[in-house]
Amino acid sequence: MTPEREQRLLQVLRRRQPDLTLIADKVHKPRNMAALVRNCDAVGIPKMHVVKPDHEYRRYRGTSRGSDRWVESVVHSTLTEAVDAVRAQGMKIYAAHLSDTAVDFHDVDYTVPCAILMGAEKAGISEEAAQAADLHITVPMMGMVESLNVSTAAGIILIEAQRQRKLAGLYELDRMPAEVIARHMFESRYQ
Amino acid sequence: MTPEREQRLLQVLRRRQPDLTLIADKVHKPRNMAALVRNCDAVGIPKMHVVKPDHEYRRYRGTSRGSDRWVESVVHSTLTEAVDAVRAQGMKIYAAHLSDTAVDFHDVDYTVPCAILMGAEKAGISEEAAQAADLHITVPMMGMVESLNVSTAAGIILIEAQRQRKLAGLYELDRMPAEVIARHMFESRYQ
Ligand SMILES: C[S@@+](CC[C@H](N)C(=O)[O-])C[C@H]1O[C@@H](n2cnc3c(N)ncnc32)[C@H](O)[C@@H]1O
Ligand SMILES: C[S@@+](CC[C@H](N)C(=O)[O-])C[C@H]1O[C@@H](n2cnc3c(N)ncnc32)[C@H](O)[C@@H]1O
Repeated sequence: MTPEREQRLLQVLRRRQPDLTLIADKVHKPRNMAALVRNCDAVGIPKMHVVKPDHEYRRYRGTSRGSDRWVESVVHSTLTEAVDAVRAQGMKIYAAHLSDTAVDFHDVDYTVPCAILMGAEKAGISEEAAQAADLHITVPMMGMVESLNVSTAAGIILIEAQRQRKLAGLYELDRMPAEVIARHMFESRYQ
Repeated sequence: MTPEREQRLLQVLRRRQPDLTLIADKVHKPRNMAALVRNCDAVGIPKMHVVKPDHEYRRYRGTSRGSDRWVESVVHSTLTEAVDAVRAQGMKIYAAHLSDTAVDFHDVDYTVPCAILMGAEKAGISEEAAQAADLHITVPMMGMVESLNVSTAAGIILIEAQRQRKLAGLYELDRMPAEVIARHMFESRYQ
């Protein structure tokens, strides 16, 4: 790693948002997982939560563009486990879910500690996941098709979270634990 | 098609935005093309422009969720052809391009007639395309990876266009030519 890139990594790590995360609930296509990780990196999420699909689970492949090196994934066997993990960190849970009670994703406060919960390609958000959430949020649709691709929907919501957090100055706070930064900087030399 | 779905189709067609479009400049992965079409449908784009990649061009496959039935694609052999087509309709061209002169995509007016120009997976926006554009727009990145997936970036920009156009009342104007609506309604009975 060049000194310039090392500087860049340090700067990126200092902007990381430990109180923002994403939960992927049984998303099973590797390319969607890869795109989700890439979205997380782009808005400064240091750690995401992955609930394993029932059948297959291959690690992402394709187009994460190396972002899985920079975003940690915690794999859970059940949704409850993932929910408990983010609740333990005091996070609200916003489920991206086209339910009757869902609100427009623009009208939500993402500057509070929060987890964005994304559903699977076909099944969407499970009944259990819908209930576990504090709020259902929706990206408005004006066409014939009723949903977006999961990673597109996540990107749209996360970039709104980024916009709000930038306005609130949350990218200037240098909130990552020093030892996490040190570990990343160390590893970057040997990978 | 059930009468309910027919009603829905009519409603959707009436909200279509003839002065908003997308140009995909040599995007070659069918799944990305499929996701782009799906995004267009979601914000009410009736017709998109596709510049053929140099090598392969297969029709989309995968996850357009049938949106290619509702969004027309005009295929061009060169970018110039696509640019001429949208200019002839009085549209501005906003290139999604991470150049030095790019502005944050939030700070752009999408209520004027405009085309969003998206670059290819690896090559991005060509020099020629960058020059043809009125403005370069960028989705801010806070991580290590330097770009988003092309369909995610398009979704983010188009949903902002949708938000602005909704505020401006542009989804209430019923601007699609009657014969286009009639043709869709007719075809929907026989497909
Ligand atoms: C392809 S969609 C699943 C569609 C599924 N048939 C359903 O009805 O939920 C996969 C996931 O993407 C997210 N998603 C897709 N479109 C969305 C939208 N317009 N608003 C909010 N979330 C969306 C949701 O988390 C959803 O569970
Ligand atoms: C994967 S990117 C291409 C990356 C290419 N290496 C480059 O430097 O342009 C494919 C296309 O997605 C769009 N794109 C991706 N990330 C973007 C961002 N953050 N802002 C604006 N457009 C973006 C652009 O249209 C780009 O040409």
